Amino acid sequence: MSGDGGVATALQGASGALEADPDLRLTLVITHEHRDLLVRHGLDDHPRVRVAPARSTLPMDAGAARALRNGSGSSLQVCLEQVASGADAAAVSAGNTAALMALGRQLLGMLPGIERPALMAALPSATRPVWVLDLGANIGVNAQRLLEFAQLGHTAVRVSSGRSPRIGLLNIGREPGKGPDVVREAARLIDADSRLDYVGFVEADRVFEGEVDLVVCDGFAGNVLLKGAEGTVRMIFDRLEREFRGPLRWLARRRVERLYDKLDPARHNGAPLLGIDGVVIKSHGGACRRGFASAIALAALEARRGLTAELADALWASD
Amino acid sequence: MSGDGGVATALQGASGALEADPDLRLTLVITHEHRDLLVRHGLDDHPRVRVAPARSTLPMDAGAARALRNGSGSSLQVCLEQVASGADAAAVSAGNTAALMALGRQLLGMLPGIERPALMAALPSATRPVWVLDLGANIGVNAQRLLEFAQLGHTAVRVSSGRSPRIGLLNIGREPGKGPDVVREAARLIDADSRLDYVGFVEADRVFEGEVDLVVCDGFAGNVLLKGAEGTVRMIFDRLEREFRGPLRWLARRRVERLYDKLDPARHNGAPLLGIDGVVIKSHGGACRRGFASAIALAALEARRGLTAELADALWASD
Repeated sequence: MSGDGGVATALQGASGALEADPDLRLTLVITHEHRDLLVRHGLDDHPRVRVAPARSTLPMDAGAARALRNGSGSSLQVCLEQVASGADAAAVSAGNTAALMALGRQLLGMLPGIERPALMAALPSATRPVWVLDLGANIGVNAQRLLEFAQLGHTAVRVSSGRSPRIGLLNIGREPGKGPDVVREAARLIDADSRLDYVGFVEADRVFEGEVDLVVCDGFAGNVLLKGAEGTVRMIFDRLEREFRGPLRWLARRRVERLYDKLDPARHNGAPLLGIDGVVIKSHGGACRRGFASAIALAALEARRGLTAELADALWASD
Repeated sequence: MSGDGGVATALQGASGALEADPDLRLTLVITHEHRDLLVRHGLDDHPRVRVAPARSTLPMDAGAARALRNGSGSSLQVCLEQVASGADAAAVSAGNTAALMALGRQLLGMLPGIERPALMAALPSATRPVWVLDLGANIGVNAQRLLEFAQLGHTAVRVSSGRSPRIGLLNIGREPGKGPDVVREAARLIDADSRLDYVGFVEADRVFEGEVDLVVCDGFAGNVLLKGAEGTVRMIFDRLEREFRGPLRWLARRRVERLYDKLDPARHNGAPLLGIDGVVIKSHGGACRRGFASAIALAALEARRGLTAELADALWASD
């Protein structure tokens, strides 16, 4: 029900996801007054679509407190209840992140030893996407929490990509003595965990060279890294658009658009909330139809590969 | 003597700066074995060039401790001594930042009430460059220190651009309740200083829209913001280069190169070290000839406009 594009974008994304994946079944959580949109998007009597009615929608600026107070009957709560009851295997939402985290934690519970969910998302790099966590759900974390991020991220990336990620710890220099105490202490903890492929410190510019597959950091720094990349990509493509004129514009358009599509972090959509006992994917508020479909595809992938059980195993093993 | 391009790049930059500014006089600090390079670059008997001999060069990985121990006679120390003695009005160096800060602080002293220098640099945005401080010289700062950054940055940008900058505080959300305590406390302090044009919190993606002229943040976040933008710009232009082929490549080359030139943060060169009692400019280690020349031009501008006295006045007034 949420997201900048409104219900229509989510429904277009749902249609796209259903077309792309013949085994996918979707439960659409929608309020009564929007149900005519289901007809318009051909989703009213789709054989693989079920509808779960919601009484209300939490506004985009509803944070954790308001979600916990007024969540009952909201599309977000109904969506998560579908997963809690076992009716559905994963939840996807473009709503407020804090609301999603708070309700997810309350309704699905947390994995053993994890206090708060961490948010992970992909950044474009010179080679393949690089996963980064945390992205703002946790600020001012200690070294132990950074180790947890590494463990959660390691398992999530391994499950979705099939390969153990090379892990870097975001820092302001590569040398071992650089950076805050908490980051240096986290380096010792992550390095000591033999299941993790720890590469060392990574500076923000090297993230985009694809030196590592997973970047671990405090939520404040991760948020700056992700949003800074979004802003830079958007600025450059806006400038390119203005710079290219006449035949050049015409010739370059398709290639530039294709590249923008590949590189815009806002289109690498689908940020898993890790640590919750269930597959929960945050879709970017500004995601387009295709972005929303890719968040659904990621949810399906993680659910099929049993991400939650894998994470629980990894966390038990680390005790 | 330092920087990735070595002495030759610095000397080419010096030539360029002398050509562009007929009133500029330069003291080149150089070791004996490199003096033949002066001849090669036509700087050996230039009417506006003086040479100050250095006995050694601190390596690029020499940090603060090593610089303080072994600095004597080094090109970096000799350069700063020229300013300390009043022989020169400003210093420019592409050497190690920590070494430059430590020696700058020792040889030139600090402005009233300032403990450690802050490093400021410009990022490209949709409109004009946006200044950001701190960039890694200070990590884990308190709210009072963020206020100082705002005061230093305000004066430095006003002196070099002639206009009072709109100031934003880097945060992970725009709403007043968002982010760490220290950032929210700093917002109150900066907002209470009537000389500062405080706009509010700014998220990393909005920095590149040119919403503000000056971004204040902890050195860790600033470093991630600046280097992240550098990495993103480099990655995109590498991909564009590979994507454009045949006539398109030929047609687009000049425009793409010109845009890269404008947008690469590594070429917006010249980062003032603020808080030191003297004009000291850090040139990017990877700066090209033109980048080095622009760092020199910035040093000249700040010296001519009496930045240090202006900063001292502003700091006295804020007591």
